[in-house]
Amino acid sequence: MYNIALFGAGRIGQVHAVNIANHPETNLYSVIDPYDVNANMLCDQYDAKRQSIEEAMADSHVDAVCICSATDTHADLIELGAKAGKTIFCEKPIDLDSSRVRDCLGVVEQYKVPLLVGFNRRFDPHFANLKQRAVDGEVGEPATLIITSRDPEPPPAEYSKVSGGMFRDMSIHDLDMARFLLGEDPISITAHGSCKIDPEIGKAGDIDTGVIVLSFASGAIATILNSRKSGYGYDQRIELHGAKGMLQVANVRENLVTSTSDSGAQDAKPLHFFLERYKEAYIAEWQHFVDVLNGSEPNCSGTDGELALRLADAAIVSMNEKRTVLL
Amino acid sequence: MYNIALFGAGRIGQVHAVNIANHPETNLYSVIDPYDVNANMLCDQYDAKRQSIEEAMADSHVDAVCICSATDTHADLIELGAKAGKTIFCEKPIDLDSSRVRDCLGVVEQYKVPLLVGFNRRFDPHFANLKQRAVDGEVGEPATLIITSRDPEPPPAEYSKVSGGMFRDMSIHDLDMARFLLGEDPISITAHGSCKIDPEIGKAGDIDTGVIVLSFASGAIATILNSRKSGYGYDQRIELHGAKGMLQVANVRENLVTSTSDSGAQDAKPLHFFLERYKEAYIAEWQHFVDVLNGSEPNCSGTDGELALRLADAAIVSMNEKRTVLL
Amino acid sequence: MYNIALFGAGRIGQVHAVNIANHPETNLYSVIDPYDVNANMLCDQYDAKRQSIEEAMADSHVDAVCICSATDTHADLIELGAKAGKTIFCEKPIDLDSSRVRDCLGVVEQYKVPLLVGFNRRFDPHFANLKQRAVDGEVGEPATLIITSRDPEPPPAEYSKVSGGMFRDMSIHDLDMARFLLGEDPISITAHGSCKIDPEIGKAGDIDTGVIVLSFASGAIATILNSRKSGYGYDQRIELHGAKGMLQVANVRENLVTSTSDSGAQDAKPLHFFLERYKEAYIAEWQHFVDVLNGSEPNCSGTDGELALRLADAAIVSMNEKRTVLL
Amino acid sequence: MYNIALFGAGRIGQVHAVNIANHPETNLYSVIDPYDVNANMLCDQYDAKRQSIEEAMADSHVDAVCICSATDTHADLIELGAKAGKTIFCEKPIDLDSSRVRDCLGVVEQYKVPLLVGFNRRFDPHFANLKQRAVDGEVGEPATLIITSRDPEPPPAEYSKVSGGMFRDMSIHDLDMARFLLGEDPISITAHGSCKIDPEIGKAGDIDTGVIVLSFASGAIATILNSRKSGYGYDQRIELHGAKGMLQVANVRENLVTSTSDSGAQDAKPLHFFLERYKEAYIAEWQHFVDVLNGSEPNCSGTDGELALRLADAAIVSMNEKRTVLL
Repeated sequence: MYNIALFGAGRIGQVHAVNIANHPETNLYSVIDPYDVNANMLCDQYDAKRQSIEEAMADSHVDAVCICSATDTHADLIELGAKAGKTIFCEKPIDLDSSRVRDCLGVVEQYKVPLLVGFNRRFDPHFANLKQRAVDGEVGEPATLIITSRDPEPPPAEYSKVSGGMFRDMSIHDLDMARFLLGEDPISITAHGSCKIDPEIGKAGDIDTGVIVLSFASGAIATILNSRKSGYGYDQRIELHGAKGMLQVANVRENLVTSTSDSGAQDAKPLHFFLERYKEAYIAEWQHFVDVLNGSEPNCSGTDGELALRLADAAIVSMNEKRTVLL
Repeated sequence: MYNIALFGAGRIGQVHAVNIANHPETNLYSVIDPYDVNANMLCDQYDAKRQSIEEAMADSHVDAVCICSATDTHADLIELGAKAGKTIFCEKPIDLDSSRVRDCLGVVEQYKVPLLVGFNRRFDPHFANLKQRAVDGEVGEPATLIITSRDPEPPPAEYSKVSGGMFRDMSIHDLDMARFLLGEDPISITAHGSCKIDPEIGKAGDIDTGVIVLSFASGAIATILNSRKSGYGYDQRIELHGAKGMLQVANVRENLVTSTSDSGAQDAKPLHFFLERYKEAYIAEWQHFVDVLNGSEPNCSGTDGELALRLADAAIVSMNEKRTVLL
Repeated sequence: MYNIALFGAGRIGQVHAVNIANHPETNLYSVIDPYDVNANMLCDQYDAKRQSIEEAMADSHVDAVCICSATDTHADLIELGAKAGKTIFCEKPIDLDSSRVRDCLGVVEQYKVPLLVGFNRRFDPHFANLKQRAVDGEVGEPATLIITSRDPEPPPAEYSKVSGGMFRDMSIHDLDMARFLLGEDPISITAHGSCKIDPEIGKAGDIDTGVIVLSFASGAIATILNSRKSGYGYDQRIELHGAKGMLQVANVRENLVTSTSDSGAQDAKPLHFFLERYKEAYIAEWQHFVDVLNGSEPNCSGTDGELALRLADAAIVSMNEKRTVLL
Repeated sequence: MYNIALFGAGRIGQVHAVNIANHPETNLYSVIDPYDVNANMLCDQYDAKRQSIEEAMADSHVDAVCICSATDTHADLIELGAKAGKTIFCEKPIDLDSSRVRDCLGVVEQYKVPLLVGFNRRFDPHFANLKQRAVDGEVGEPATLIITSRDPEPPPAEYSKVSGGMFRDMSIHDLDMARFLLGEDPISITAHGSCKIDPEIGKAGDIDTGVIVLSFASGAIATILNSRKSGYGYDQRIELHGAKGMLQVANVRENLVTSTSDSGAQDAKPLHFFLERYKEAYIAEWQHFVDVLNGSEPNCSGTDGELALRLADAAIVSMNEKRTVLL
């Protein structure tokens, strides 16, 4: 049984708390969060103790840290965890600043602790099925990849500043998936963006609509289609083509009821957002982290986190300078 | 080029007129209908002559008759056509009275003219594809067949009397399809009916909702699900099961546009009714009639027409006497 | 926290054990099963004690019993539980013999303990969504209900004897769903069956293919389509029609990947069997049992269990005597 | 009745010949093609005369010309038709050279004859339905448009030279659709291409895989996804997003049969290629040309043809120079 110290008791921390508690090999040992309400709720529910950062890092009963706190604390906590010899799970991103990420990963390397970065989509069973079949050659050599990712609703405009902008906050997942699914790093990136949904986002200097094209040395081309507002829930589709055919992952609907009437045949819309859509992915992700605790190589490393961020940075340059950026 | 005399210039007569005119081997030679407006319209449009029944039957230029007139004229026209040595296409049913059908088919047999009865669904390309694959063994030996047939809207209540009731008018198509698809005659029939849609139909002594179960010597069981009102267009589905799997024919939609919004994903409803849904089937049916003119065996004979009617009669007995009727 | 004594540590007992343990208000207190391997495995995993039937019934710490043992023990255990004042969850059926069921329910009534019978499909979120929308009038007054239930593979032929035959073992779920969804008891039943899949089942005196038609006083007609072998996993569909349209529940697929190639567009098949398909239903069912523990009325009572069994009995009479049975 | 002179009796000429002959207001008057076999076949079948170019242009009975000959003859025939005062239908493209197109359209303008350019997809009923609903505001202001167009099989490598390359030959349809659906001209274009399917195409200096991104002044972004080989027939999909939701047109399948077995649920693949997929579009296009003959404004003008070609030219520059081209 591994004792887990959970940093951050907010929305995503609560998701991990359930999965930590339900997993037969992990125990929610402590919760670290300055905000009393959330922290105490989790402690009560799962019989965990509250700790300060320092206590948790110094506690030899803590085997691993699960970092779900605010983005700007990730790199510091990773470094502290590494120095304390803990196995580390960290929600994406490591940091919004590439050089800070580089430094942080240097510390991780120095202390030789395993680090799993939480790009949750890699663990989605539908996408994993697509990837396995692609690797098995079902469509031939991959030629085109299309990733659709549309949020149900835009975040508050002020979030744009904290988040690093749509490409760094949202597209980063798709950039990671492109690398993950094609098993290859892109050689160029071209990004296009506009503000079509919420003028406040535009005023805050961000975009809400974007298209990113990645070119790969193999000749494969990946296209990422993003929006901050779908109008119909969380749109998460993937389509991969080769000369032998196409693999597609459809959206997960709220239910499987179809109602047919004079106005047509109506199916339920896609699940609302990531907590619903990736519920199974978060469980599989945690299972993988337990595998890492048991000695497996993390399948989403610090370097993966770093490279996705660099692609997001390059996308911003490409969009702003209206040119293709060579990588 | 075969000259065709068309009896009946109503809705279904007009469908056949187009197909006769468009087919490279047939010519719409004459139209026989006491109702001037429709008859003259077709004659003008296709450069055909108007004839009386007697003229058409006596005209040696007429190779074949296409009978689309009122149901109660079918048997008489078939007999006249047979005596005049014409090749005969007749819309279903031959007659609503089984013994009249028997007599009529006796005349056809005596004069040895080819007769094709127009059970249009046999010629639908989707159903034909299902049947071919069933015959090829794709699902193994057929075990269960489910035929769904729901009209968009009930006919006027008074139609119930003319039509012979829902089983004789509407289910007769499904009864024919059950025989056609399973390639076997049923050994028993059990029918259930009620009036759930239009009380006027009930007052007229008819039903608008029905379920018919047919048992076959092979052990196969066919279920027919009927309604006079779907609420969403013409519902025409078929599902065939064997130990190896299932073959299904879905409805044909009005278009292939899907609209996804906060209220769900909406597809177009099924095509409105038989003229739209079976447009291709009517063309294929006419092609088959040309094959019959060229010497092929009709794939839907007078006997097929007779047997479907007998099943409809037995269904009425079963429903009224609340018992399974052995055949 | 309610302490639960679990009777039966087999396949379905294990499903309930997980749900009992994961629910914040229930605790897997003890396991009662003569078979050591399964019982000890559950006790180890969930830190529960093993008890004998007598110990569990006499133990005042036991708040409720969860009966998942062999069918022929259900009625006895219900009676013991009732006499001991426990709240009772019992897997279907109460017994295969109607009069035994009647006696057993008499005891439950006498001791006034709550009893929830485990017709799991009532708790499936997709079916529940359909029912709610039907109740809300989305299709108008229900006219036709079609329930498709096909197992992936037939059970061993010898199981036919223990199970009471396909209608009592399998169709009983569909008979319950017909009552549940239409909110009405049928006035007649007509059943048809044959042995098309596995001749051994026929030799054992059972069927593997069946169609049941239920008529209701409202004029509604329900059709149940059963097979012991689908050839493609667990086929669990429901279709409800009224004059305003249709509500359908589709199968849950193994995944949402579609592979399109020269041979067509291939979707995953339905989930394999009930453990996979009704995973969420079992969780919701257990939640409802907790509600019952907290004072709610069971939404699937002993009488519901009894009535479904009577319908199954009547189906057998109908099939054997080839007649409609009035209820 | 309008007399039509058909230039070119090849594959696409034959499609138009049927539609001309079947339309009640047009007559296939003459066929102009140096290749005897095709020309005589059409003349025989539709009772048309063979003419030389000069004869047809000089023949006062000819009301309109339908130009389906080789691409490099289009501009000359348009000019001759314009000078002869004929109403002109011309298959795309007018010419592969932009300045030749400009000159040709100058002649058309000078002689004030109506010219309809045959971008067939504009007339597809499914796409037309999507466009109408977009115009009606169903998704709000258009933000992202995704056009998927994949051929079933690559053309022979030598075709690349004649065709002007994939962007000028194939993507030109999608570029036209982007303008047509968004009702707006793009302000920049960025194109990416590679040769992933057939190395011979690469040797011929062309690509077989491409992605084009168009930016519009409104902020809308259109993405075109092309391949010369889908592996599964003709992939023709459109997806339009706004803040209120999404409209999609799915592929038309070969049939509506689904076969479900242990290996999954298999639907038919998309219709093979443009002759099958756009059969209805060609009929609607011809109907529109008849409307033009009757005085309507062509809904796809010479300028539309010219602008699509310019976009294709700009796409080639963008791809070759790896930069966004401002328009």
